[in-house]
Amino acid sequence: MNYQIIRRILGIVVEFIGAFLLLPAICGLFYGEKQVIVYFVLAFVYFITGRLIASIKMTNQAYYAREGLVIVGLSWIILSILGAIPLVITGDIPSFTDALFETVSGFTTTGSSILTNVEGLSHTGLFWRSFTHWVGGMGVIVFILAVLPMTGGYNMNLMRAESPGPTVGKLVPRMKETAKILYSIYLGITVAEIILLIIARMPVFDALCIAFGSAGTGGFGVRNDSCASYSTLMQGIITVFIIMFGVNFNAYFFILRRKFGEVKKMSELKGYFGIIAFAIITITINIRHMFPSLFMAFHHAAFQVGSIITTTGFATADFDQWPQYSRALLVLIMFVGACAGSTGGGMKVSRVMIMFKTIYREIRKYLHPRAVTNVTMDGKTMDRSTLHSVSVYLSTYMLLFFLSILAITALESYDLETIFTSVACTFNNIGPGLSKVGPTCNFSIMSTPTKYILMFDMLAGRLELYPMLILLTPAVWKNA
Amino acid sequence: MNYQIIRRILGIVVEFIGAFLLLPAICGLFYGEKQVIVYFVLAFVYFITGRLIASIKMTNQAYYAREGLVIVGLSWIILSILGAIPLVITGDIPSFTDALFETVSGFTTTGSSILTNVEGLSHTGLFWRSFTHWVGGMGVIVFILAVLPMTGGYNMNLMRAESPGPTVGKLVPRMKETAKILYSIYLGITVAEIILLIIARMPVFDALCIAFGSAGTGGFGVRNDSCASYSTLMQGIITVFIIMFGVNFNAYFFILRRKFGEVKKMSELKGYFGIIAFAIITITINIRHMFPSLFMAFHHAAFQVGSIITTTGFATADFDQWPQYSRALLVLIMFVGACAGSTGGGMKVSRVMIMFKTIYREIRKYLHPRAVTNVTMDGKTMDRSTLHSVSVYLSTYMLLFFLSILAITALESYDLETIFTSVACTFNNIGPGLSKVGPTCNFSIMSTPTKYILMFDMLAGRLELYPMLILLTPAVWKNA
Repeated sequence: MNYQIIRRILGIVVEFIGAFLLLPAICGLFYGEKQVIVYFVLAFVYFITGRLIASIKMTNQAYYAREGLVIVGLSWIILSILGAIPLVITGDIPSFTDALFETVSGFTTTGSSILTNVEGLSHTGLFWRSFTHWVGGMGVIVFILAVLPMTGGYNMNLMRAESPGPTVGKLVPRMKETAKILYSIYLGITVAEIILLIIARMPVFDALCIAFGSAGTGGFGVRNDSCASYSTLMQGIITVFIIMFGVNFNAYFFILRRKFGEVKKMSELKGYFGIIAFAIITITINIRHMFPSLFMAFHHAAFQVGSIITTTGFATADFDQWPQYSRALLVLIMFVGACAGSTGGGMKVSRVMIMFKTIYREIRKYLHPRAVTNVTMDGKTMDRSTLHSVSVYLSTYMLLFFLSILAITALESYDLETIFTSVACTFNNIGPGLSKVGPTCNFSIMSTPTKYILMFDMLAGRLELYPMLILLTPAVWKNA
Repeated sequence: MNYQIIRRILGIVVEFIGAFLLLPAICGLFYGEKQVIVYFVLAFVYFITGRLIASIKMTNQAYYAREGLVIVGLSWIILSILGAIPLVITGDIPSFTDALFETVSGFTTTGSSILTNVEGLSHTGLFWRSFTHWVGGMGVIVFILAVLPMTGGYNMNLMRAESPGPTVGKLVPRMKETAKILYSIYLGITVAEIILLIIARMPVFDALCIAFGSAGTGGFGVRNDSCASYSTLMQGIITVFIIMFGVNFNAYFFILRRKFGEVKKMSELKGYFGIIAFAIITITINIRHMFPSLFMAFHHAAFQVGSIITTTGFATADFDQWPQYSRALLVLIMFVGACAGSTGGGMKVSRVMIMFKTIYREIRKYLHPRAVTNVTMDGKTMDRSTLHSVSVYLSTYMLLFFLSILAITALESYDLETIFTSVACTFNNIGPGLSKVGPTCNFSIMSTPTKYILMFDMLAGRLELYPMLILLTPAVWKNA
C-alpha cells in the first residue's frame, strides 16, 4: 500500500473543501449574515492545512486499484467531517452527529435530513447544504482530476473508484479530458435548469439550491414541504431535469459529438426510460382517484417516479399516503436506481439489466445446453468477469442491506416498514422513505448509533460498496 | 425435448399418488371415518390412470437436464392438483383454490394454511395433509428413483432437478442406491422421532403427524395453536429433530459409514450450527423479559429459531409479539434456510456461505491483485462456474421475491409487513409470517389471485426456481 500517495491526495481534498466553502460564504454576504465569518475562517484553515499535507515530499508515485479505493473512501469521510464543522460552529445544526448526518447525506446526494425545520437555517447554511449535493453528485475526486494538473497514468484508479456503474469507460484517451468533459456537461445542464426555474419565477436562491439538489440527484430542498409549494410549471421543469440527470452522461457526450448512432446503441437508456414509463403509467392509474384530474395524477406520479428512480428524493405529495401498489413500486425502483455514469444512486439500471439477461441465459443454457449463450449490452458481448462482478456486487448489496436492517432493529423499536425503508432510502441515496421516515417526516427520530449506521450506508451506497468495505479490512491499516 | 419420457414419468408419478392415498385411508379406517371411501376410490383411479399413461410405448429413452427440470416442475403441479381433490370431495376443504393452496403448501413443506380451524378436519384429511410434508420433504421423484427399477444413466438429471443445493453429489456410484440410502436415513430419523414423542406421552396420531411435519420441515400441525399446547419436553424433542432434519443428509451417511473425518470437513455444518447458536443466544437475551425464567426464554428461542431456519414453521409462542430485533432476525434466517441436501428450504446455508466467501475474495482481489484467490468449501476449491451459478441463483431469488411482492401489493391493501412476510414465508417454505399472517393467523385473508401467486412461490422455492421458470419459457411448449 502506497501511503504517501494516499496522504498527498487527501491533502489536496482538504484544500478543495476550503475552496468549496467560499461559495456559501459569498452567498451569505448577499444576505449580510454573520455566519459567513465562520465559513471564511474555516476555508482559510482548511486550505492551508491541506496545502501543507499535500506538499510533504513523496518518493513513490505509483499506485493501483486498492489505493484508489482507500483514497476515495477516506476522502469522503474527511469531506463529510470537515463539511459538518461550519454547520456546528454557526449553530445551524448544534449537534455534531446531526451535522455529520446532514453533510454525509449531502455529499452522498441522499437528501435524508434530521432537520425538523429547514426554513430555520441561515441562507449560508442552506446554500452549503445544497451545494454539497452538487459536489457529491459528480464526485470530488473527479472534480480534482478535472481541474488539477496531475500527471501519471495512475489516475484511472481514482476515477474508477469514485464513479458509479459496473464498467467505467474513458470518453477520450486522456483521463483529465474525460473528467473535464463530464464536469462541463454537468455544469451546463445545471445552469440550464437554474435559468429555466428563474424564468418560471422561482426565487433565485431557491432556483440555485433546487438545481444543485436535482443535478446531484440529492434531494435537499430549502422549504419544509420539499417541492410541494412550487408551481406546477416549476415542478414540471424539475421533473424533466431530475430524469435528465439520471441518464448516463456518456449519452450527452455522444450527442454533443453528434454520434447519435452511439446513443441509440445504449441498452441502459432503453431500460431506464422503459422502467420510468411503466412506473408512471401504472402509478397514475393507481392514484387517479386521489387527485382532481388525470393530468394532476400523472404530474405527481411523474415527479415522484423521476425523483425516486434517480434517487433524488424531492417530494410534491405525501406518497406515504398512496395505495400499497404505488408505495411498493416506489420502494422497488429505489433499488433499481438511475443509469451508471449518472449522478444517481441505487444498484443502477445496467446492473439490473445484466442480472435479468444473466438469469435468462441461465435458463437458456438448460434448454439448449450446446448453444453459445452470451449476455450483450450496447450491442457488445460482456465478458464473464464483468458478469461475475455484477452478480457479486448485487449479492453484497443485499447482504449489507439486510445486515443494516438487523443492526437497526436491535437499536430501535419502530415498525419494520420504517426500519426497512430508512435503510433502503439511505443505502440507495434517495432521501425520504415510508411510514415514520416518509416525505413529511425526518430522521431526527433515530438514536445516535442508528444515525452512524445510516451514514455508513449512505457512503457505501454512493461509493458502490468497495471503498467503504476495504476500509474495514485490517490489511489496509497494517503498515499505516 | 423428449416428450415421451416426460409423459412416461408423469404417468408413474400419478400411479404413486394413488399409492400414497392408501396411507391416510388406512389411518381413517381406525377412526371409522366415511371419508376413507373417497381416498380408496381415488387411489384406485389414480393408480390405473397412471399405469395406462406410463405404459404407452416409447421409442427414445434419452433425456437431459431440461427434461429433468420440466418433469420435476410438472410432477409437482400434478401432485398438488391430484392431492387436493380428496380434500375437496370429502368436504374437508370445499373450495378448490383453498384445497390446492393447502396441498401445494403441504408438498412444498411450507406449512402455510388457509384453515381457520384445523381441528375441524377429519383424521383422514389431517393425516393426508401432514403426510404430504413427508413425501415433499425428500422429494417424490427421489422416492420413485429409490423404489422403482429404472435403468439408464439419465436419472441423475431427475435427481439433480429435485434435490436442493448448489451441487448435488452422488453418495455412491449408483443413482438408485443414493436415493435408497437417503430415504432409509429419512425414514429412520422420522421413526425415531415418532417413538420419542410417544414415550413423552404425545397421542399416537399427533406424534405421527408432527413427525411428518418436522421430517419434511413442513409445519402443518393438528392443533389450532400449532405446538403451543404440547408439553415442554415434547417441544424440546421437536426442537432437536427439526434441527436434525435441517442438516445435510450426507452427514448422516458419513456417520453411518464411520467417516467422521468427512463430517468434520463439511463447512456448511459449521455455518448452520453457528447461525443457529448466534440466533438462539441473541433472541434469548432479547425476549428474556417476556418469559418467567431464562430457561423458558431459551426454550422458546431455540424452538423458534430451529423451526424457522429449517423452514419448518411450527410455533410454540406468538413470535409476532416479540421485539423488533427478534422479528427481523427471524425474517433474515427465513432467507438463509437450512443446509443443502436436507429437507429444509430457503437459499441454503452453503449458498449464503459461498456468497460471503465470494464477497471476501472480491475485496481481497483489490488488496492483492496478483494473489491467487479461491473460494473453498469442505476443504476443496470451488470452480468458477459453480460460483457463478450461485450468484445468479441468489439474484434470481431476490428478483422473483420482489416481483411477487409487487404483484401482491397490486391485489391486496394489507400493510407492507404482511405482504413482505407472506411472500418471504411461502417462497422460503416456512409457513407463518408476521403481522396479519403471523403464527396465530392464516392465509384465508388473501384473495384468489394472491393465493395462486403464493402457490407459484412455494413451488419455485421448494424446487429451487428453475423447474418452475423453465415451464414459463415458450420453447418448452413449442412442439408439445
